[in-house]
Amino acid sequence: MKQRILLTFILMALASAAADAQTKGAAPANVDDNAAKEIRGWLDRWMKAFKEKDADAVMALYADDVIAYDVVPPLQYVGKAAYRADYQQLFSQYEDNLNVDIRDLHVGATGDLGYATGLELISGTLKHGRKSDGRWFDFHDHVSVPADIESGKAMLELKP
Amino acid sequence: MKQRILLTFILMALASAAADAQTKGAAPANVDDNAAKEIRGWLDRWMKAFKEKDADAVMALYADDVIAYDVVPPLQYVGKAAYRADYQQLFSQYEDNLNVDIRDLHVGATGDLGYATGLELISGTLKHGRKSDGRWFDFHDHVSVPADIESGKAMLELKP
Repeated sequence: MKQRILLTFILMALASAAADAQTKGAAPANVDDNAAKEIRGWLDRWMKAFKEKDADAVMALYADDVIAYDVVPPLQYVGKAAYRADYQQLFSQYEDNLNVDIRDLHVGATGDLGYATGLELISGTLKHGRKSDGRWFDFHDHVSVPADIESGKAMLELKP
Repeated sequence: MKQRILLTFILMALASAAADAQTKGAAPANVDDNAAKEIRGWLDRWMKAFKEKDADAVMALYADDVIAYDVVPPLQYVGKAAYRADYQQLFSQYEDNLNVDIRDLHVGATGDLGYATGLELISGTLKHGRKSDGRWFDFHDHVSVPADIESGKAMLELKP
């Protein structure tokens, strides 16, 4: 069963102490400076690891104290171990054709704090019958789809 | 009909040019410095305006080019006018007992970029039978509930 899910995402990342000092104090955010390029590099590495279903490579991109709000329950994943289990659960559900595309990307950074927001389209064949998202370390993810509150139905097939 | 919805949220805010120069270049984020206190002040003003269903006071807290991912469709609200309409739609659905509580709050800032993440519990009586978040201006909201992907059901009643 091939499934396509269009999600909204946000990630926030902190530069490690070893980050290039030249990016410190850059202002305002949204400027395509070195730090924003590094955030895009983070995303490139994440997308590669995601498509390869490589949990180790994915988790190497996250801070130890990451808190994540994913599209699947629970409300929040606290810490790297919990979020790794979430990724592993996702990866285990897909065949090897898992893919992710990003659109409407907005990236910004100032000092050692950076972010990226956008839409991500996850597609792949489900084994049984879900998710995504200086070294910069992601310390917060938020991934979701809108819901119809009255009917309680999650809207998994919205067009961008 | 009294309704309670527990949502996850994130906001990102940029300090205006008039922001206190003392907060520039503060590192690392998550430090409870002046900028983080200002972000908390932003949240206090937002909560007050939200409870009062005061769309003008709410929208005074947002940047003109805000992009918001709300718990209700569409996938994204681009610009202040669109997001104002979303707030007005929400406010119009509730009686005057609309309330919001925030828990598990994380606030950080570095330079002129700040953020807050956490859980928000919205409650109130629905007229017919939803949402929520120096001068700091919010330029990105992301509000959601988890979904069960297999059944397509939004999970509106999760416990924290």
